[in-house]
Amino acid sequence: MKVSFEVSRAFPGATDGVLPEACPTRTVLDHVTSKWGVLVLVALSQGTLRWAELGRTVQGVSEKMLASTLRTLQQDGFVTRMAYPEVPPRVEYSLTQRGHDLAARMLPLMDWIADHADEILAG
Amino acid sequence: MKVSFEVSRAFPGATDGVLPEACPTRTVLDHVTSKWGVLVLVALSQGTLRWAELGRTVQGVSEKMLASTLRTLQQDGFVTRMAYPEVPPRVEYSLTQRGHDLAARMLPLMDWIADHADEILAG
Repeated sequence: MKVSFEVSRAFPGATDGVLPEACPTRTVLDHVTSKWGVLVLVALSQGTLRWAELGRTVQGVSEKMLASTLRTLQQDGFVTRMAYPEVPPRVEYSLTQRGHDLAARMLPLMDWIADHADEILAG
Repeated sequence: MKVSFEVSRAFPGATDGVLPEACPTRTVLDHVTSKWGVLVLVALSQGTLRWAELGRTVQGVSEKMLASTLRTLQQDGFVTRMAYPEVPPRVEYSLTQRGHDLAARMLPLMDWIADHADEILAG
C-alpha cells in the first residue's frame, strides 16, 4: 500500500520534519485517540446509544471518564446529545456527520488492528 | 463513505455490542494510539531516524517516554532497532513491514484530522 503523507501539511509549523507541540492537529489527535475517545467513537459508529448503554458498551469506563470523554467529543463536534423531556428523562448520544466522517477513517485502522492483534501480542 | 465494521469480530468475546476490556484488540489499540505511539509511528513513516532525531521530531517527548514508547512498539513488531558498531555508536530506528502496514491505515486518519483540526477547534 502506497503511503503519502506530508508532515509539514499535517503539522503546520513543522520544519525539518518536526511534529510541533503547539499544533491543532496534535490537540484533535489527543482527543480522538484517547483511550476512551476511540472506544466511544467506535461504539457510536454502530448507532445511537443512551448513557447507560454507552457505559455498558465501553466496558471498564468510569462515569467520570465517560462524561469527560463525551464532553470533549461534543465540543469538537463529533458527538451530539439529545435530551427528550420524558419521565424518566431520556438522553441519547449519536455521531454527527463530522463524527461519521472521522469514524470512516478510524474503522479501517481498527479492522487492521483487530485482524492482527493476536499475532502482534504473540510476539 | 460507507463504513462497515463488525464489533463482534474486532473485539472477540463481544456480546450485545460490548467492547470487552480483556481483549487483544484493546491492548494493541492502547499501544498504537498512545499519545507518543502515534507520533513516533508518523515520524518513522517518513524514514529511518536516529534516537536524537526522533527526540527532536516528536517535539515534547521526554527521554523516558521515548524509550518506553519505542520499547512497546519494538515488542509489538512495528519498529526495529539497528545498532551499528561504530565510534561513537550509531543506533537507528525504522518501521518494519508490519509497522508500514499499520502506518498505511493510520495516515488517512491523520490526513483527515490535519485537514479539519482548525475548524474542529474553532467549535
